Amino acid sequence: MYIILMYDIMMDKTGAKVQRNTFKICKRYLTHIQNSVFEGNLTELNLMKLKKELSEYIRKEQDSFIIFNSRDEKWLTKEFLGKEDDKTSNFF
Amino acid sequence: MYIILMYDIMMDKTGAKVQRNTFKICKRYLTHIQNSVFEGNLTELNLMKLKKELSEYIRKEQDSFIIFNSRDEKWLTKEFLGKEDDKTSNFF
Repeated sequence: MYIILMYDIMMDKTGAKVQRNTFKICKRYLTHIQNSVFEGNLTELNLMKLKKELSEYIRKEQDSFIIFNSRDEKWLTKEFLGKEDDKTSNFF
Repeated sequence: MYIILMYDIMMDKTGAKVQRNTFKICKRYLTHIQNSVFEGNLTELNLMKLKKELSEYIRKEQDSFIIFNSRDEKWLTKEFLGKEDDKTSNFF
């Protein structure tokens, strides 16, 4: 399955900690392609593990994570306008 | 075609103007679902128009726009973790 994950974390007093931890978790499973966006191929099992780990930090009323799931990468094309982000970005 | 568009704009002295203008353009074609993320169905013609309008503002070295394109919405599932963003957000 091809996954595109994006998040919007409320930067209140605990927001920075949530962002740091969720970023690290996402980087273990997916490729960081833009500020708060990750992509990559995942098995069903790894997607479940990723969601479980993230849910320990995500705050129901403050943070928004969206996961788009395409059964196969070949059904998705990706195009850049402007600069192309370096895949090995070390945001943190 | 089902489109997911996300952007990362460098907030230097002209960044705010780029964000304001590109946001307005995206809102005319797509639905705003998260901080810098839009989605929606577009014809090939409208996608070309959207990209043309955006390219007038996007700065090659500072701003990153990514457009994922799925031939059909049914090949994509979308899942929320945490809060579900209100579709009619009036960010600006």
